[in-house]
Amino acid sequence: MSSQPLTTALPFKVADLSLAEAGRHQLRLAENEMPGLMALRAEFGAAQPLAGARIAGSLHMTVQTAVLIETLVALGAEVRWASCNIFSTQDEAAAAVVVGPNGTVAEPAGVPVFAWKGESLEEYWWCTDRIFDWSAEAEAAGADWIGPNMILDDGGDATLLVHQGREYELAGAVPAAAADDSAEFRVVLETLRRSLERSSDRWTRIADELQGVTEETTTGVHRLYELHARGELRFPAINVNDSVTKSKFDNKYGIRHSLPDGLNRATDVLMGGKVAFVAGYGDVGKGAAEALRGQGARVIVSEIDPINALQAAMDGYQVARLESVIGDVDILVTGTGNKDVVRLEHLLGLKHLAVVANVGHFDNEIDMAALEALPGAERIEIKPQVHEWRLPNGRSVLVLSEGRLMNLGNATGHPSFVMSNSFTNQVLAQIELFTRPEAYPTAVYVLPKHLDEKVARLHLDALGVELTELTPEQAAYIGVPVEGPYKVEHYRY
Amino acid sequence: MSSQPLTTALPFKVADLSLAEAGRHQLRLAENEMPGLMALRAEFGAAQPLAGARIAGSLHMTVQTAVLIETLVALGAEVRWASCNIFSTQDEAAAAVVVGPNGTVAEPAGVPVFAWKGESLEEYWWCTDRIFDWSAEAEAAGADWIGPNMILDDGGDATLLVHQGREYELAGAVPAAAADDSAEFRVVLETLRRSLERSSDRWTRIADELQGVTEETTTGVHRLYELHARGELRFPAINVNDSVTKSKFDNKYGIRHSLPDGLNRATDVLMGGKVAFVAGYGDVGKGAAEALRGQGARVIVSEIDPINALQAAMDGYQVARLESVIGDVDILVTGTGNKDVVRLEHLLGLKHLAVVANVGHFDNEIDMAALEALPGAERIEIKPQVHEWRLPNGRSVLVLSEGRLMNLGNATGHPSFVMSNSFTNQVLAQIELFTRPEAYPTAVYVLPKHLDEKVARLHLDALGVELTELTPEQAAYIGVPVEGPYKVEHYRY
Amino acid sequence: MSSQPLTTALPFKVADLSLAEAGRHQLRLAENEMPGLMALRAEFGAAQPLAGARIAGSLHMTVQTAVLIETLVALGAEVRWASCNIFSTQDEAAAAVVVGPNGTVAEPAGVPVFAWKGESLEEYWWCTDRIFDWSAEAEAAGADWIGPNMILDDGGDATLLVHQGREYELAGAVPAAAADDSAEFRVVLETLRRSLERSSDRWTRIADELQGVTEETTTGVHRLYELHARGELRFPAINVNDSVTKSKFDNKYGIRHSLPDGLNRATDVLMGGKVAFVAGYGDVGKGAAEALRGQGARVIVSEIDPINALQAAMDGYQVARLESVIGDVDILVTGTGNKDVVRLEHLLGLKHLAVVANVGHFDNEIDMAALEALPGAERIEIKPQVHEWRLPNGRSVLVLSEGRLMNLGNATGHPSFVMSNSFTNQVLAQIELFTRPEAYPTAVYVLPKHLDEKVARLHLDALGVELTELTPEQAAYIGVPVEGPYKVEHYRY
Amino acid sequence: MSSQPLTTALPFKVADLSLAEAGRHQLRLAENEMPGLMALRAEFGAAQPLAGARIAGSLHMTVQTAVLIETLVALGAEVRWASCNIFSTQDEAAAAVVVGPNGTVAEPAGVPVFAWKGESLEEYWWCTDRIFDWSAEAEAAGADWIGPNMILDDGGDATLLVHQGREYELAGAVPAAAADDSAEFRVVLETLRRSLERSSDRWTRIADELQGVTEETTTGVHRLYELHARGELRFPAINVNDSVTKSKFDNKYGIRHSLPDGLNRATDVLMGGKVAFVAGYGDVGKGAAEALRGQGARVIVSEIDPINALQAAMDGYQVARLESVIGDVDILVTGTGNKDVVRLEHLLGLKHLAVVANVGHFDNEIDMAALEALPGAERIEIKPQVHEWRLPNGRSVLVLSEGRLMNLGNATGHPSFVMSNSFTNQVLAQIELFTRPEAYPTAVYVLPKHLDEKVARLHLDALGVELTELTPEQAAYIGVPVEGPYKVEHYRY
Repeated sequence: MSSQPLTTALPFKVADLSLAEAGRHQLRLAENEMPGLMALRAEFGAAQPLAGARIAGSLHMTVQTAVLIETLVALGAEVRWASCNIFSTQDEAAAAVVVGPNGTVAEPAGVPVFAWKGESLEEYWWCTDRIFDWSAEAEAAGADWIGPNMILDDGGDATLLVHQGREYELAGAVPAAAADDSAEFRVVLETLRRSLERSSDRWTRIADELQGVTEETTTGVHRLYELHARGELRFPAINVNDSVTKSKFDNKYGIRHSLPDGLNRATDVLMGGKVAFVAGYGDVGKGAAEALRGQGARVIVSEIDPINALQAAMDGYQVARLESVIGDVDILVTGTGNKDVVRLEHLLGLKHLAVVANVGHFDNEIDMAALEALPGAERIEIKPQVHEWRLPNGRSVLVLSEGRLMNLGNATGHPSFVMSNSFTNQVLAQIELFTRPEAYPTAVYVLPKHLDEKVARLHLDALGVELTELTPEQAAYIGVPVEGPYKVEHYRY
Repeated sequence: MSSQPLTTALPFKVADLSLAEAGRHQLRLAENEMPGLMALRAEFGAAQPLAGARIAGSLHMTVQTAVLIETLVALGAEVRWASCNIFSTQDEAAAAVVVGPNGTVAEPAGVPVFAWKGESLEEYWWCTDRIFDWSAEAEAAGADWIGPNMILDDGGDATLLVHQGREYELAGAVPAAAADDSAEFRVVLETLRRSLERSSDRWTRIADELQGVTEETTTGVHRLYELHARGELRFPAINVNDSVTKSKFDNKYGIRHSLPDGLNRATDVLMGGKVAFVAGYGDVGKGAAEALRGQGARVIVSEIDPINALQAAMDGYQVARLESVIGDVDILVTGTGNKDVVRLEHLLGLKHLAVVANVGHFDNEIDMAALEALPGAERIEIKPQVHEWRLPNGRSVLVLSEGRLMNLGNATGHPSFVMSNSFTNQVLAQIELFTRPEAYPTAVYVLPKHLDEKVARLHLDALGVELTELTPEQAAYIGVPVEGPYKVEHYRY
Repeated sequence: MSSQPLTTALPFKVADLSLAEAGRHQLRLAENEMPGLMALRAEFGAAQPLAGARIAGSLHMTVQTAVLIETLVALGAEVRWASCNIFSTQDEAAAAVVVGPNGTVAEPAGVPVFAWKGESLEEYWWCTDRIFDWSAEAEAAGADWIGPNMILDDGGDATLLVHQGREYELAGAVPAAAADDSAEFRVVLETLRRSLERSSDRWTRIADELQGVTEETTTGVHRLYELHARGELRFPAINVNDSVTKSKFDNKYGIRHSLPDGLNRATDVLMGGKVAFVAGYGDVGKGAAEALRGQGARVIVSEIDPINALQAAMDGYQVARLESVIGDVDILVTGTGNKDVVRLEHLLGLKHLAVVANVGHFDNEIDMAALEALPGAERIEIKPQVHEWRLPNGRSVLVLSEGRLMNLGNATGHPSFVMSNSFTNQVLAQIELFTRPEAYPTAVYVLPKHLDEKVARLHLDALGVELTELTPEQAAYIGVPVEGPYKVEHYRY
Repeated sequence: MSSQPLTTALPFKVADLSLAEAGRHQLRLAENEMPGLMALRAEFGAAQPLAGARIAGSLHMTVQTAVLIETLVALGAEVRWASCNIFSTQDEAAAAVVVGPNGTVAEPAGVPVFAWKGESLEEYWWCTDRIFDWSAEAEAAGADWIGPNMILDDGGDATLLVHQGREYELAGAVPAAAADDSAEFRVVLETLRRSLERSSDRWTRIADELQGVTEETTTGVHRLYELHARGELRFPAINVNDSVTKSKFDNKYGIRHSLPDGLNRATDVLMGGKVAFVAGYGDVGKGAAEALRGQGARVIVSEIDPINALQAAMDGYQVARLESVIGDVDILVTGTGNKDVVRLEHLLGLKHLAVVANVGHFDNEIDMAALEALPGAERIEIKPQVHEWRLPNGRSVLVLSEGRLMNLGNATGHPSFVMSNSFTNQVLAQIELFTRPEAYPTAVYVLPKHLDEKVARLHLDALGVELTELTPEQAAYIGVPVEGPYKVEHYRY
């Protein structure tokens, strides 16, 4: 798709009707797999709790996100959207959202989306800037100025832009890039420098207007806690990531689905009978190990935490250091959240044509830099995102997605049903912050347990699950309300 | 065994050498399955951190507890012991502990144990009282008076006795039983009344002397939090129950082992191909469901908590209300921690000769009272702890352990390896409270995470688990010490 | 039980009414788990296809066999019974059968049973001889002589006695025992010598009268094929062992049930997290491996057949030679059908207190003779059927059932539901041979596939299984009758 | 690829070097996953047992088949190849084989391949005809005429052509098509008519020359048995399909791999928590059910054979008729080998947007004709091979691969390792028939068990499997040679 930003009102020139149509087909299918979001539409559609909310959204512009966006709209919100990753946009989803359920290519009736697959860094930050620009809405409303009053964030880039922008406005200048600033941060500085040229208080006004942010991921949450610890957080935040229905579902069941999917699409290699090594037995590793065992692989696990290691043993897995068994490994999976888990010594020790796959969060779980620097190593593209690295020792390894997240690069990421859990948390968090500001002084919160339970509850019917109801006597006996919440905060599920 | 209390120095007349010998054989086997405790002996045997500790212990007097007791002794403690349940003592274990590793029946060199299988309530509370009576030790030491300075408790009966005793001493009298006091509480009152007749400040002195209590179970922990909330707790307490290596291991892996064991010993019924219903999908239910599936049963789960219900569905189980599927159920297991989960209507709806088993904590998960009161129902003992109840509808059900915990009544409870985790927590908690009193002002604590991790660590070698070690760079990258602890407090494992 | 043979009409003096009552309770429970047999009673009870059949039965006198016997009687047969193993009789089952459903101890109305737990070899063969002595029946009928016309055999001892007896009668003498004859064969010779003293043609008449034998086990079947190959088989035989519903169910699902049961009853050792080694991946090994994995053990398998080895690998198990991994093994299970699978070198290589268990057919899978002859080895009875062998290397191993079948010795063998499949095959085989002699000239047969399928069919309702029915068009399309049989003979299931 | 047949010596104009290069990369990866074939190259490469063999091959022209072809060549054979299906050719594999390991596009040094993706029926039969035309080889050898002497067949089309061609040559004419002849058979007749115009005895000479055929599939095998039963088979045949290492591996483990792969690629729908229905519990159904359970689905199975039904129940699956549970089904899989298993009534009863997938052999497992004829039903292409059918009842179903084999249509079929087992059987069968013609008079054979075991043996090292070796004493004890074969013919694995 030749996606070109056109105007702020309609960022996409959706040249190809079939693209938007394909996207709308996929939305319809995804809606069936996202019962939580659809239930919120049914429950809150009439009450319009988000009427008046102007949401600046920054989150992978996929089909699932499209259903999220249209749910926010159905609850009354106005929305502008960018992706939070230069590669993750599904163009047909973006097109479908722009056109909207009732629009056409000629007369789009959807949401402004600033995202396409394969943005440059400059384009990426331009898009992110755009979601804070509500001048078209102001013009339509005959208002002097309108800004967003909510952020929905994934990774914290949108939140970062506001905080940095305001800081530089107060300082009166954007600083020059430091020598060790990353290429990306230089683009951020340039973006804010251009903004400051146009307005001396744009980000300050936005920051004042914002009622809060709801954040999707570990990384973004980490940034928020740091901001708050330094006393610099400007508006309340809800940490969606640590809802049980997010972290325990997304990680475990998402990976269980997408790891074998990615292995299959990338290599077609039989998992049955093979030795698969899974580094890390947190939720991601638990899902990975279960999937591989379910396909008949013999799974070996590594862990640094003795509790998780003992869990792995109790679940019947061999637990070993990677270097102890490296010569037996056919499929090497890393999902630890740490760096340099798979090092050059490991890559050199693997069986010929062993598959190397990263399902952790960061790109540096596998030391690709060392591989790239290895004299005599040769990289052959078997197909996109699948590379054979011929090693000086005469063996090869197959590296998926260049060492990055292969469940995104070689498969399609988490399936809709899993994302429905995460996104239902997002919508509930938006409603909380927007409708009950008094309950959330500036700080970082997790969603209250009764809402976490509600998210789960909204996904039961679609699976035919019958929930048992406590009698009043039983509820009193264990000291909980009949309707929940049912567990103490530290309950581990 | 005709176990008769003789003296306070030697509570048992161990008439039968072979009983003690059999017990010592079993201790030796259990030691091999309790690597955590044995590792503590190796680590702390020389340092004797519990030298000076006088521990009053109240916990099921089994073979595993015998290994715990001898570990406490190996670390320097003096110990007196009672069981915390009238039925749970294994007499050969008690005899083995009394004789001790180096003693003989004629000259016992072990620990005073006040426990035998099948105590009356009066005997039970007499035994509990005995563990606080250190007059023999005082006499041997030529001291005026010696009391215990530590409690190791399971369910809180020992802790209760001290608190109630002190309260009545301060009041100057033990009150008369109220009309609705239970039979057991009347015995407690009588026990304290006799004590008060002999001494007006015995429990007060003991309470002052005590440095702390370590508590094993949910029930006991609940009592402690209540005491503390009312401001009445007299000494610090460590909640061992909520260590990860206790609650997530004991419940899940213990039940996975002992549920099928109990079913087999009780009934010899094939689980394969049968419909098994598991009420509750907490840790106990998770272990039960996994065990039954592992034997080829088709498992249906019920839940009141939508999050746990969704977990069950994601794990591939049908989730239904008991009444929806009752007519298909061959094996009915309840492990919820709530009451009246299996009601008369359910018992009447089951298939002919369906098996009914309770692995929850309380006896009232199954409404046995209603069954016993049902006109026309007839109870036939097939063998001890296995009863056929002929129902007026012409069908029968097989009730195990009279509705009480069947993994104890029909099997032998948690296996040694699982108990080693729990008891290693206990010993570490005793060391904490005894050696670092300044760190624990009167309140209820959980064991710090590094000790929880240590418990796991001590069980890895026995399973051949190799732990991976963080590099300093990796540790810094995720912000943890190389040696742990590795996780935030709310991590769910 | 002081079981003493009294008369040929009533072999047992059932002194203890409670024993028979306990047996009748257990029969009632077993009937519920043996739907195949109960269905045959319902289907054939009126037609009495076995009226006129006089069955000499030799098969373990257990509760399950009791249900088999009473099924044969319900179908019209007269029956006399012995056990096929000196240890396997459950006395309460024997007592229950003698008393019968409508009898009393004073006036038994059941079947003559010649079996008690713990027979001597002399008693065993006396009992076996008794099932061929129908003089009481002859007397009652006013007949000169009556013999059995059917044998139901397990292992072939009853069949052997007839063939040997006839051979010696024709020769006119029983030969002296040869130097290398086993102790048991000497007892057989003595038994037949006494018979020959009383009658010169008893076995010849019996052999002529017999319409056939149905044989339960591999061993007995092997003997039958050899007899037939030598042209010496005197009457037709049906090989029940190789019915699919026998061999694929009994071995796999029976062991899956009884292996963990035996391990638990013997040792209470946690299987979770342990390394379990299973020698042999035939049906027995498949069931064993599945059971151990289902309890969280890490299972390693050995195989001599590359096809079975590849199956094990595809099922996710490590496949290794025992000597390669012996030092890691906590639980060692052998179920190969071969001898000397576990040798002294293996026993000496195991971890301290590793458990050694035989679930194969023969006692010589473990080289117990070598262990017993090992200088410095010491045997300590932990409890009956559980022995610690202290080895000269300072380690110990726990040997179950003295190396014999531990699922019988430490548990209760196959559960009723599994035996119902085997025994339904037996009854159908008896009906075939007795009612359709023209279809079975003297040879060894397997049960026709439609009867094998019928056995399965009779067990479906009890499990709530709904069978799908072919339309006539579908049946024609795949070329089978609507009602079956459905598969070619070499189909592997 | 614009694949155009050019000459008989080089059927493909491989215009695009990159296509052949991509193919050679994939061959190299596949070789690593096909250890059986590579082992045969190593074992027989020097001896050249197929020297003199001229093989006419008709089997899906995939990457795996390319490795098969080059193995045949490595063993000395001359080969010509066509695909056995108009859609199944992977063009890059065909190109790679034509170019050969040492050739170039300009100077191909490989094997003549007559196959491309998307042939018309006319092209298909023209290609099949070409593999019997060895005139270029004759010319090169200066011979008058050369024909093939071996067929390697999949489905029997090549074998059919020879038999039909010879029959019409003997009759002197190709008959006119009958009214009810299929479109395809009309093309066959036309193909043979053109042949007869050119030569009156071509097929007769070929039939005389042929030493045998090895046949891959059930369908082809069925045809062969029928031909032989009618006395019309002209040369011996080996039924490769019924080798254990083919039927039990290909079906079960192949489907376990490719069913979830196809579901993911087609729909990205989460399997976890869903209700999946699998029609048929043969090897295909067993693999399907295991894969779905391994992904956390709740699996319900249907069966017409009570033995297989009982197996499914014992393996823990609910067994029900499709119509009993249709309203709960999210994913419907059929793999029975029968027709009309999924009928219109079922499609109308499914949940909204349920997925319908066929992994059986024939296209008519799902009654697509009835769906296509349903008034008011509307078909929407979501993407190729994925269609939403909107039903008159307001619901939709997602039909994969238009009801045809979805593991081929939506995924990539069986993985290389599985095919290596099948194809190693093929090569061994070719060697048998070609080198030992005296052992195979014209009839249909299965491969002897020692070769079946050899196939398995050649796949063990790649999986790190250690095989245990019998001692001579053990071999004698169970009556088998040390080196096998180990099992009786009717052993069921």
